Amino acid sequence: MRKISAEILCVGTELLLGDIINTNASYISARLSEIGVSVYHQAVVGDNEDRLKGAIKDALSRSDVLITSGGLGPTYDDITKETVSALLGIEMYYDKNIAERIHEYFKRIGRAMPPSNEKQAMTPVGAHIIPNPRGTAPGLMIDGKYQGKEVTVIMLPGPPCELEPMTDESVLPLLARKFNAEKGIFFSRNLHFTGIGESSLEEIIRPLMDSLNPTVAPYAGEGEVRIRITASAKSEDEGRRLCDEMIDKMLSYKVGKYLYSIDIPTIEETLVRLLSERRMTLSTAESCTGGLISKRLTDVPGASSVFPGGICSYAEKVKINALGVEGKTIEEHTAVSEECAKEMAERVRALMDTDIGVSVTGYAGPGGGDEANPVGTVYIGVSTSERTFVKRYSFSSLRDRVFIRRAASSYAMGLVLSEIGNGEFDIR
Amino acid sequence: MRKISAEILCVGTELLLGDIINTNASYISARLSEIGVSVYHQAVVGDNEDRLKGAIKDALSRSDVLITSGGLGPTYDDITKETVSALLGIEMYYDKNIAERIHEYFKRIGRAMPPSNEKQAMTPVGAHIIPNPRGTAPGLMIDGKYQGKEVTVIMLPGPPCELEPMTDESVLPLLARKFNAEKGIFFSRNLHFTGIGESSLEEIIRPLMDSLNPTVAPYAGEGEVRIRITASAKSEDEGRRLCDEMIDKMLSYKVGKYLYSIDIPTIEETLVRLLSERRMTLSTAESCTGGLISKRLTDVPGASSVFPGGICSYAEKVKINALGVEGKTIEEHTAVSEECAKEMAERVRALMDTDIGVSVTGYAGPGGGDEANPVGTVYIGVSTSERTFVKRYSFSSLRDRVFIRRAASSYAMGLVLSEIGNGEFDIR
Repeated sequence: MRKISAEILCVGTELLLGDIINTNASYISARLSEIGVSVYHQAVVGDNEDRLKGAIKDALSRSDVLITSGGLGPTYDDITKETVSALLGIEMYYDKNIAERIHEYFKRIGRAMPPSNEKQAMTPVGAHIIPNPRGTAPGLMIDGKYQGKEVTVIMLPGPPCELEPMTDESVLPLLARKFNAEKGIFFSRNLHFTGIGESSLEEIIRPLMDSLNPTVAPYAGEGEVRIRITASAKSEDEGRRLCDEMIDKMLSYKVGKYLYSIDIPTIEETLVRLLSERRMTLSTAESCTGGLISKRLTDVPGASSVFPGGICSYAEKVKINALGVEGKTIEEHTAVSEECAKEMAERVRALMDTDIGVSVTGYAGPGGGDEANPVGTVYIGVSTSERTFVKRYSFSSLRDRVFIRRAASSYAMGLVLSEIGNGEFDIR
Repeated sequence: MRKISAEILCVGTELLLGDIINTNASYISARLSEIGVSVYHQAVVGDNEDRLKGAIKDALSRSDVLITSGGLGPTYDDITKETVSALLGIEMYYDKNIAERIHEYFKRIGRAMPPSNEKQAMTPVGAHIIPNPRGTAPGLMIDGKYQGKEVTVIMLPGPPCELEPMTDESVLPLLARKFNAEKGIFFSRNLHFTGIGESSLEEIIRPLMDSLNPTVAPYAGEGEVRIRITASAKSEDEGRRLCDEMIDKMLSYKVGKYLYSIDIPTIEETLVRLLSERRMTLSTAESCTGGLISKRLTDVPGASSVFPGGICSYAEKVKINALGVEGKTIEEHTAVSEECAKEMAERVRALMDTDIGVSVTGYAGPGGGDEANPVGTVYIGVSTSERTFVKRYSFSSLRDRVFIRRAASSYAMGLVLSEIGNGEFDIR
């Protein structure tokens, strides 16, 4: 791809009032950076014609591509399309196909279409229409000239739930076709890891990080790391092949045991899917995570078929009375111990009559902990009909309570996945 | 305050790469809007001198005040201070006091100071130093002239955990003193509501929403609404008095039963505090919220003294076997019923031997529900030594699973607060 520069202009008074956080700018920027497009400016203006015009002029005088978000709605203060067309000297027309799609959209969601939505069918002549299956405002791509320079403007609607998939499904391929003539498309795969920190993972796969095609970009979460692999290719088949070759290379670095999914975005969704496939059930006994694992599992619609429930045994007496851990286990080893985690996992599995029981006990801080088990120490137990085992993790004491709890819940689900997936997940 | 306009410029390549989301722009914008300062532009540039210079020039030519974030660090590519000073024609000097504070900071956190941090003591002549107790880079306010126009530049460090308190503690008061000579300070109080939707609450208190001093600004969360009251005043005492008068007015609209705290930021923290004060304990029996209440309670450090634990009874058999709900209750009324919620609350209270038991059962969607109890229906039970009662809520079917679960957990904690606070909370 020839070196092109893009900038992002988000339009919306609610952004200037601080009512909403601008996630669109970072989303688009991250995706562009993965395909090698440089972003040197982001800007936000309100629904004001003069200031919008000024911002568009600034952007077009500096960059090859301008991507806007917002201002494509049906009301009188939605003026992005009109302002861009005027600046590029392009007429607008009423696009019957777009009008029809808007009518269909309202039919589908079972509401009457407000007359104002007709405005959304007005389209700059020669614009490429970017489909928006999740809303009424289609996106638009216009080529034009500004001050004698060739420029491209891509306009997207403001809601992130519409803009994000449109960016992935349409904007990146359009840019690829436009500026990358011999290589037509971009193809991405996301690898999700848990049980390993971002820097440790990066260190292992460092030799792959400098790859130019496909690119390899890490994103750190709390207790999870995502690696996005993006290939520039002539066809989807070629893109998939390039990505899969990179995945194979990555797995040759022995990181497979930390990989919990490819392209399934959360560990809880991966776990619920795998349990469903295997027709297995899971129960939870949580101390320091306090219900976070059961909360995350039940975030997934349909979790009820694999997760009947769990016990949050925050106090020792609940571990003993409700869960059935031996009092003397806690007396001898404390509640934050391998022995206690083992009994918690075994007991909850029996109590809830499930195939697997998982337990977590540890010190999430800021208080608690001792010399042997400082804040950040977490024991995770997994019990199946075959065996029960416990792993001990030490999260850095620099991490806060939120991180430690979140990471412990991810690591616990990762251990269950790894156990039922026989060590490495077979997920492609 | 005379009508002034400000703009926000965030400096950092990581923003342009989409590695981090720009929360600073929305945070500063929201706070400025509350004190009546208009923000018409936000911008982001990287650590590049030419583009930074261009962005600062654009801002100063348009606005009275420019607030920057980022680029105050110790490395060679941190150039905000240098670039602003150069543009305003102001010299820099080595400020021994700042250097000393940076040395002290490193002493306090027990690390050796890297020599590069000396750079952070370089200061534009005549700048007002804005203290930063949470980091090494102090903020700076400089008055100057740009193109014959009087301008003010405020520079803040990038990390939100430093920038946000600096905005509240220093930037707003500085702007107040500067542009609002007769009224020196701003004073804010935050009212937190649950059990009522944002639009219903706004409708009730509508007459107060147009107040200019103090201003009244609502922020909607999931199942919670925050109202920030901000007074412009000559002294903190006067500011507090103005806020308290507004709070009294608001309570005269009979919204007190939905108010769960003033200035305590979360409902779980409020509940843990109130339970601690009353030396009472609480247990949870959760179906559709799946552990979210116990997760939120245990987000609060020290929750263990009031929350021994809970049961996530997602499946009917767990409601019956682990919790002790009568099989025939579920048979006759289904698990999503007043009767089931009542037994769940009573049983968990007995099982966990706590003063209060709270239960949630409902349809969070997308599947489930029937004519009588469609998706969005949630029953919340509260059991104490005095009585057990159940409330039924209907969240809009337009809301998603995440919203319904989150809102149900907030409403449940709100009901407990209301019950032990005798209907209205005594929280001032």
